[in-house]
Amino acid sequence: MYPIITISREFGSGGHSIGEAVAKELNIPLYDSVIVEKVAAESGFSKDVISEDGEYTSPSQVWYSSRMAYCANFPTPQDRIFDAQCEVILDLAHKGPCVIVGRCADYVLEKAGIRALNVFIHADKEYRKAHIIEHYGDTNEPIEKRLKKKDKGRKAYYRYYTDREWGDSANYHLNLDSGFLGEMVCVDIIASVARRMDAE
Amino acid sequence: MYPIITISREFGSGGHSIGEAVAKELNIPLYDSVIVEKVAAESGFSKDVISEDGEYTSPSQVWYSSRMAYCANFPTPQDRIFDAQCEVILDLAHKGPCVIVGRCADYVLEKAGIRALNVFIHADKEYRKAHIIEHYGDTNEPIEKRLKKKDKGRKAYYRYYTDREWGDSANYHLNLDSGFLGEMVCVDIIASVARRMDAE
Repeated sequence: MYPIITISREFGSGGHSIGEAVAKELNIPLYDSVIVEKVAAESGFSKDVISEDGEYTSPSQVWYSSRMAYCANFPTPQDRIFDAQCEVILDLAHKGPCVIVGRCADYVLEKAGIRALNVFIHADKEYRKAHIIEHYGDTNEPIEKRLKKKDKGRKAYYRYYTDREWGDSANYHLNLDSGFLGEMVCVDIIASVARRMDAE
Repeated sequence: MYPIITISREFGSGGHSIGEAVAKELNIPLYDSVIVEKVAAESGFSKDVISEDGEYTSPSQVWYSSRMAYCANFPTPQDRIFDAQCEVILDLAHKGPCVIVGRCADYVLEKAGIRALNVFIHADKEYRKAHIIEHYGDTNEPIEKRLKKKDKGRKAYYRYYTDREWGDSANYHLNLDSGFLGEMVCVDIIASVARRMDAE
């Protein structure tokens, strides 16, 4: 059986497209908007809030979460979204092989003892800037600032909820530079590793 | 043409054997003892000193190097070995495709504008402990201590001479977990990426 594949990615590295192509190649589902919908149904928060608060955090949110936990032993909205997200990820994982992009899925599955192939996709800034403008268009906000804000938010979110470092080799089985290797090579590497795990 | 392949590796991760197998698979040389011999000939230091001081450093050596640089603008023996090593690596790189294990080769080649495929091999501690005992035998020194000492030495050496973090995804194109993937899968991934770069 193919493993569950988790893909963490720097903003603009093409990690999401790589995940889609891997899912297509292996003919397994990629869970993305379905996670947001299920978390919305379970938690009562809107999909927009979940899309944002289920992957990104900021120093003020971390401060708020810490204070709430310390003063009132009370989960913040973001903590409730994280808990609902963990449940949804585990439910989906029990259905069988799939690709899950982002949302600390590598950590959530590992803690539950579920075998997964954990991948981190990164690329240098120039590649990512061009990719962001091509895929998401230009905005009034300078591209360097958009990139930094998203990466910082994901990094802080991962660190807060997992106590580990986002992107640190130790947390992943494959870290791939999509800018250097190209998206297709990344897809082939991930799919071929999954096929070999299937054959074991 | 195949790229030059640099392999950095955690102690006990099997990175050296992976490098040997990749070189054999692609029929290109792996430079290892030949670097030590050439550096010995150029610098006048013994091969034993070069093997150790060309990849590892300690806080006291870093302190000594900094003080020497600050007080007398004078290179330490380790600085002289590093400089000779850089020259030897660049000379060998100019001969054509090859595999170079360790010795900050990724950084040395990048600074010289030479195209390389940079790989970092890592694995969890349990895998590495078993690998070390199997390949290098047991000693009186506890295995955990041996592992920590070697990793710290390599990390400090890399940081001191490159100003970058050893093992950080950003510095490599492929970070592979040999304990999870298996050495053969790592060899296949590296060789297949090199073949695709050859075909470009």
